[in-house]
Amino acid sequence: MYQVRTDLALEAREKFEDDHVEVKGVIVKQEHVKGNMTVTKVVIETENGAKAMGKPKGNYVTLEAPDMADSDEDYHREISMQLAKILKELIPIEKKELSVLVVGLGNREVTPDALGPRVVDNMMITRHIIRQFGKYAFGLKNNHQISSIVPGVMAQTGMETLEIIKGVLEETTPDYIIAVDALAARSTKRLNRTIQITDTGISPGSGVGNHRHALNRESVGIPVIAIGIPTVVDAVTIVGDTMSNLVSAMEETRRLEGLGHSISQLEEAEKHELIRELLSPNLNAMFVTPKDIDESVKRLSYTISEGINMAFFPA
Amino acid sequence: MYQVRTDLALEAREKFEDDHVEVKGVIVKQEHVKGNMTVTKVVIETENGAKAMGKPKGNYVTLEAPDMADSDEDYHREISMQLAKILKELIPIEKKELSVLVVGLGNREVTPDALGPRVVDNMMITRHIIRQFGKYAFGLKNNHQISSIVPGVMAQTGMETLEIIKGVLEETTPDYIIAVDALAARSTKRLNRTIQITDTGISPGSGVGNHRHALNRESVGIPVIAIGIPTVVDAVTIVGDTMSNLVSAMEETRRLEGLGHSISQLEEAEKHELIRELLSPNLNAMFVTPKDIDESVKRLSYTISEGINMAFFPA
Amino acid sequence: MYQVRTDLALEAREKFEDDHVEVKGVIVKQEHVKGNMTVTKVVIETENGAKAMGKPKGNYVTLEAPDMADSDEDYHREISMQLAKILKELIPIEKKELSVLVVGLGNREVTPDALGPRVVDNMMITRHIIRQFGKYAFGLKNNHQISSIVPGVMAQTGMETLEIIKGVLEETTPDYIIAVDALAARSTKRLNRTIQITDTGISPGSGVGNHRHALNRESVGIPVIAIGIPTVVDAVTIVGDTMSNLVSAMEETRRLEGLGHSISQLEEAEKHELIRELLSPNLNAMFVTPKDIDESVKRLSYTISEGINMAFFPA
Amino acid sequence: MYQVRTDLALEAREKFEDDHVEVKGVIVKQEHVKGNMTVTKVVIETENGAKAMGKPKGNYVTLEAPDMADSDEDYHREISMQLAKILKELIPIEKKELSVLVVGLGNREVTPDALGPRVVDNMMITRHIIRQFGKYAFGLKNNHQISSIVPGVMAQTGMETLEIIKGVLEETTPDYIIAVDALAARSTKRLNRTIQITDTGISPGSGVGNHRHALNRESVGIPVIAIGIPTVVDAVTIVGDTMSNLVSAMEETRRLEGLGHSISQLEEAEKHELIRELLSPNLNAMFVTPKDIDESVKRLSYTISEGINMAFFPA
Repeated sequence: MYQVRTDLALEAREKFEDDHVEVKGVIVKQEHVKGNMTVTKVVIETENGAKAMGKPKGNYVTLEAPDMADSDEDYHREISMQLAKILKELIPIEKKELSVLVVGLGNREVTPDALGPRVVDNMMITRHIIRQFGKYAFGLKNNHQISSIVPGVMAQTGMETLEIIKGVLEETTPDYIIAVDALAARSTKRLNRTIQITDTGISPGSGVGNHRHALNRESVGIPVIAIGIPTVVDAVTIVGDTMSNLVSAMEETRRLEGLGHSISQLEEAEKHELIRELLSPNLNAMFVTPKDIDESVKRLSYTISEGINMAFFPA
Repeated sequence: MYQVRTDLALEAREKFEDDHVEVKGVIVKQEHVKGNMTVTKVVIETENGAKAMGKPKGNYVTLEAPDMADSDEDYHREISMQLAKILKELIPIEKKELSVLVVGLGNREVTPDALGPRVVDNMMITRHIIRQFGKYAFGLKNNHQISSIVPGVMAQTGMETLEIIKGVLEETTPDYIIAVDALAARSTKRLNRTIQITDTGISPGSGVGNHRHALNRESVGIPVIAIGIPTVVDAVTIVGDTMSNLVSAMEETRRLEGLGHSISQLEEAEKHELIRELLSPNLNAMFVTPKDIDESVKRLSYTISEGINMAFFPA
Repeated sequence: MYQVRTDLALEAREKFEDDHVEVKGVIVKQEHVKGNMTVTKVVIETENGAKAMGKPKGNYVTLEAPDMADSDEDYHREISMQLAKILKELIPIEKKELSVLVVGLGNREVTPDALGPRVVDNMMITRHIIRQFGKYAFGLKNNHQISSIVPGVMAQTGMETLEIIKGVLEETTPDYIIAVDALAARSTKRLNRTIQITDTGISPGSGVGNHRHALNRESVGIPVIAIGIPTVVDAVTIVGDTMSNLVSAMEETRRLEGLGHSISQLEEAEKHELIRELLSPNLNAMFVTPKDIDESVKRLSYTISEGINMAFFPA
Repeated sequence: MYQVRTDLALEAREKFEDDHVEVKGVIVKQEHVKGNMTVTKVVIETENGAKAMGKPKGNYVTLEAPDMADSDEDYHREISMQLAKILKELIPIEKKELSVLVVGLGNREVTPDALGPRVVDNMMITRHIIRQFGKYAFGLKNNHQISSIVPGVMAQTGMETLEIIKGVLEETTPDYIIAVDALAARSTKRLNRTIQITDTGISPGSGVGNHRHALNRESVGIPVIAIGIPTVVDAVTIVGDTMSNLVSAMEETRRLEGLGHSISQLEEAEKHELIRELLSPNLNAMFVTPKDIDESVKRLSYTISEGINMAFFPA
């Protein structure tokens, strides 16, 4: 019909919930934490689970905070602390000194896609100092070497993002990558209210732009932790979903008895064909985003960078 | 049902064309010009015409160029020349020396809304030089005094855009305002392909953000020429329109005989109610824009600033 | 000889200290506060004092923090708190609800001059919300109406900064202006380490650019509190001062007995003439600034905006 | 005494001219071309010449245009054309299809150092298109594959610029690098008026920031063409040079007979010691740049990107 895209494992899981279906090989745990936040862990354990979910095997942790879009600084500090806690569960930060490359994916020039580059702008970068002045340069307990790069997008560089990152890895051999990227959600309700942290890296088709090749342990040889916030919904998804809902509503509504009957006689394939025909082909290159996306991206990029800084360099 | 919004007089007119209706008090002339461009003049002559079109009385000139989204520099030069020509028809540039304030409306931090501010970045600003060094400072034939301002949006300034502009006018008393703004189209096909020039100023609800109060001759006391390019479609418009099309398709299609029959029995009001219910309320604060909007805004802001520069300071 | 320029009253006062001269009509008080900070109050009480100092009558408070250039966030929080305290001494913030216009002076495109615009980027703007939703919109004790503007510089707008601000004042009638600007110091040692807060506004020739007309109570009719940080030294000042020091060193040094004797025979005017001749005329349009000015301006603009936010909206 | 730094071979050569000295192994040719431009070729042929000049062996072409700082667009087009011509002499552009990586060195956040990144912003990037759609994708005669990267500076990335570039080279194997960088001149008179093109790459200590390791054929294995414009003078250089001039003036001036006599008795070493003492140590981290550097960098980055685009993709 049309490609429903969501980068959130949480939303991929919800499709099944709506149909009251258990997905084999997928475990979900939910926890409510301080500050009205919800932490949901989705573990995709088997290849079958991965196929059903349309996402690679691994851990997906989602931090939802309904007021994340507000500007309360103390609240954002709490979100950063939760993010730091989740990172420490995925990376052995307190066990040894690590070299970590933070990659800010996306296009700095397109507001909802600037999340990754803007997170990098506020990172505490230590690698060059520690290498030059030794491990006591900062007087810190843990001398993690943090480096960072904003590779840009293919239209700007003429190169695959993965080519650039692989090159940098060969030269600087970090232990971990933390990749930060803007994500696409299925529902506008999630935009700028959810942080997803996963150890599965970044999959093809993620983000606003087009990173094409997966950035994960398989492609680069070291663990890739991805941190993302949905800032857009694909235009095709939003239009297609609303039309599906319209068809469903017609089937269900009592007001339209005869109509519902007729529609329910349509084959599923016919319904899809009908919707597909109405979707303008140039919708594929379009996205939906809130009008105040500048404020959200500014605030949330700071919340994420603070979370990473706290994880590696606790006060 | 839902507010179909278009800032383009051309699209407002097309609604009637689809229904083969003549609109009294509205005149439309079309002309094909060099470079595969189309210039359409819509003149709204009467208050009735204004009511029907949902736009104030006045002249609306639309410059359409199918390849406007491409990066061919020489082609953009031709578009700039056409824009200069249209401006000279609306402003008596060659008759006397003018003082003109160019206003870059919109939010520099949101890519599709940055058109106005970015046009101002490339303007040739002369007012301060001519006032300080006299009319021979540039050795030009016409010593037009160009000044400019980027007022920002209300969320940034806490002030109505109109308050800021009116204040600046009182102090600097220009003869004309040229206001540049990103517009909302009804159809994604028009995005970044159309320039609208009008002597009616900017109406409430235009643009990506919210300028609330009209910026026009009535509100500021001097003529306001507005130049705009549609860079977004309202999310509500795109979703609502597609659903209307779906309903129409159901009514028309032969495959769905019984169905079409049932739907056509629905009252118009019921159809609207059905669609309205399915429209998520937070869609109102969302817009749809192309993924490569950064390149389009960069290129088109340059094309417009060149057009204005050519109009006032021909080589 | 050459114009020694400093926007800091503290440095203007130091000239006299070096000569062990008391300046009549000028009172200086110094206080050491928490965090290794020094707060110096210079009060210019009489017109004679103003003439001697080359600065208008009024209060100049200087906050010096040697580690202000470092990136310690908690330390910057303390600086912001000191700034808030000083602001509350100059503005009756706790006594009544005020309407305050924050003006970000300077050129956003020139890094050391971007301080003012960047402070405005992080301000909590409330005027439009309170005017629309009433005084309980924020649930705050004090409903100060904060608005802001970044007027740009004359080369960008073609207008005097003062023209723009006066216009905005007429329309929006605030009670106070807080003007934030990058300053010029005499000594490179002060750069990015000193905040000056004064109730005398901004004087001609301040900042990196050229604001020409004073922005003060006299010119705009309401009190103007100016907050500035020196981010540049004029190239002429730095070169001229070093040459003066060279001549002085030659006069004093024992190694150069005969030489010192000869120079001391020169008339003061001859010495000045000699130095003036060696100063390249295009030095006038040049400034000196540190290579890491981007990091300092980013950090310090945040420190100032936090200080203003804390003064008006204590947690 | 103090390190006199110039990145311009032209200025390095002038030191000797002032003393009427021939430098063995260094050939200089000058040519006046259309538009009041001067093209100077300095060829350093031997290691001795390199030592004398303080620059590696190779070709240095300097394009001087006194009005380069002005905003005349047609004039800048001519400069771009000259640049394209010089590039075609150093790179066999017309002989075969090349893969070229354009590197924008420097710090985008510091205005005079943003030249390199801003040149890259306007490059015509073709590599990804040609690789995806084949050599007829653009319908051009020459299908040069242009890619680009803005590596950032060490304070931002924690990595040596050379590490990043070497990594990218390993993955994408271009034939040539074109590295664009802001340079340091000795004299303020050259700022923003001179383009240097060299086949020797970028040497340690170049630019405003600190690239530390040379980027040249030796370090990366492929030819590196460097394009630079001086946008700053080191603060130490400008102050030191003025003091030297003062001492010389004192020696020469008739007015100061006794004085000149005394100074000429000083040993050279004593003079240097005197000047060195007066140079503030924190001057080392400072630079001098014009107040309107934003306009120059904006214009000149466009002039360079146009020149490169013209060289590879003639209209």
